[in-house]
Amino acid sequence: MLKLYSFGPAANSLKPMLALYEKELEFEHKLLNPAKFEHHSDWYKAINPRGQVPALDDGGRIVTESTVICEYLEDAHPTTLRLRPEDPYDVAQMRVWTKWVDEYFCWCVSTVGWHRHVSGMVKNLDDAEFEEVVSRVPIPEQQVKWRRAREGFPQDLLDEEMRKIGISVRRLDEHLRDHEWLAGGAYSLADICNFAIANGMQNGFAELVNEDDTPGLVRWIAQISERPAVKRVFANVPREF
Amino acid sequence: MLKLYSFGPAANSLKPMLALYEKELEFEHKLLNPAKFEHHSDWYKAINPRGQVPALDDGGRIVTESTVICEYLEDAHPTTLRLRPEDPYDVAQMRVWTKWVDEYFCWCVSTVGWHRHVSGMVKNLDDAEFEEVVSRVPIPEQQVKWRRAREGFPQDLLDEEMRKIGISVRRLDEHLRDHEWLAGGAYSLADICNFAIANGMQNGFAELVNEDDTPGLVRWIAQISERPAVKRVFANVPREF
Repeated sequence: MLKLYSFGPAANSLKPMLALYEKELEFEHKLLNPAKFEHHSDWYKAINPRGQVPALDDGGRIVTESTVICEYLEDAHPTTLRLRPEDPYDVAQMRVWTKWVDEYFCWCVSTVGWHRHVSGMVKNLDDAEFEEVVSRVPIPEQQVKWRRAREGFPQDLLDEEMRKIGISVRRLDEHLRDHEWLAGGAYSLADICNFAIANGMQNGFAELVNEDDTPGLVRWIAQISERPAVKRVFANVPREF
Repeated sequence: MLKLYSFGPAANSLKPMLALYEKELEFEHKLLNPAKFEHHSDWYKAINPRGQVPALDDGGRIVTESTVICEYLEDAHPTTLRLRPEDPYDVAQMRVWTKWVDEYFCWCVSTVGWHRHVSGMVKNLDDAEFEEVVSRVPIPEQQVKWRRAREGFPQDLLDEEMRKIGISVRRLDEHLRDHEWLAGGAYSLADICNFAIANGMQNGFAELVNEDDTPGLVRWIAQISERPAVKRVFANVPREF
C-alpha cells in the first residue's frame, strides 16, 4: 500500500494529500511532528536522506519532493480522476504554474512562515540543545535557515519576502479573475500545488489576500475548499500536535 | 513547423536545443541578441509576455520555461528516442534533478554569470539609456537584477552564490561518481537540464570543477559533449553575435 510521510494538511505536505484524496487512492499516513524534529531523526533520514517531508513510499520505492510526488501519482496510479490535463499544451501550462510556486511563491511564504511559527520551536532551546538539533539537519541551506529562525530573520529580508508575496498573490489573482482554474480549464495539479501554499492567506495575510484586492484568488480558494475531497483532507487528519 | 526562440547554445536556451537535436525534430531557430535586449522588444513580448527565452512556438501555441518545453517535446512529439524514462519511479528521479537545477543550481550560476558577462552590457549606458532598457523588462525581479548588474552585485552576495555553486557541483559529482547518468540508468532530461548549466564550468569555474575535485562531473560533461547530437548543437548554430 502507498504510505505518505507528512506534516499534515498544510504547505508542501498538503499537495500529495490533496492528490491522494482527490484520486481516492488508499494510503497509510505517517504524520511526523516538526516540533520534535522527527524529520531529522535517523529513522526518517533512512527514508529520505534530505530529511524533508513529504515523502511517498510506493512498495518500498521512495519518491520525494511534493510536486514530483503529485506527478508520480498521475504516472504510476492513473485513476479515473485525472489531475493532469490530456492536451500536452495544457500540461505545459500546468507545469509553468507548479514550477512557479516551487521556485518563487513558496519560498517567500516559507520565510515568513518560519519567522512566525518555526522560530518559537527553537528560541527556548539552550545553545547545546540547539546545536544538537542543527547537527541533525542534512541540508546545509536548511541549517542556515534554522540558525536564522533562532536568531531572528533580518527585517530587510522579511520586508523583501513580503514584497514577493504581494507580487505572487497579485499574479494568481490576475489569472483567476478571468479563469476558473489555473490551467487547461479544469482542476489540476496547478491548482493543488498553488492552493497548498495560498490556502489560509486570507487569514494570515489578510492585508494582501481579501475580497477587495484579490477577488479572483479569494473566489478560487473558496471554490477549492468546497470540493468534497478537500473537505475530507481537513476533516480526516488527526490533529496530534 | 516548430520554432524555437533562444539565445543560442548556453544556459536555459541550451536545454530545448539539446532535446530537439537529440530527437531529430525539425525546427526553425530564431536567435535573439541579448546585448541588444531583443527579448524585451515589443515583438518578442507579444510571443512571451515575460520577455524570457527560450520559448517554443508549436503551430501558434507558445510554450515557455526551458524545462517545461523539454517535457512538452516528450509529451507532444514522442519520437523513437525518448528523453524521459519509461518507469514512473525513474521519471520521478529525473524530475527531482530537473527541479533542483531550476530551483537551486541555475540561480547561483546565473548571478555569477550576470556579474561576469551581463554587467558589461549595461555599464556603458548612460542613465537615460539604462532606464529605457529597464522600463522594457516585464518581470519586477528581473528589473532588480538589471539594476544590480549595472551597480555591481554586492560582494557578500557573490560569495554566497559561489558557496552554493560549490555545494551544487559536489552534489552532482557525488552522484556521478557512482552512476553513468543522473536518473534511470540512461541519458534523460535530468542530464540535459543539468548539463546546460554545468557545461563550461570546467573552464569558467576550474577551481571547483576539475579532474581532482569532481572527477565524476568532469567525466559526465565530457561524455555528453561526445554525443553526436550535442556536437551538432554546437557546430550548427551561427555565431551571429
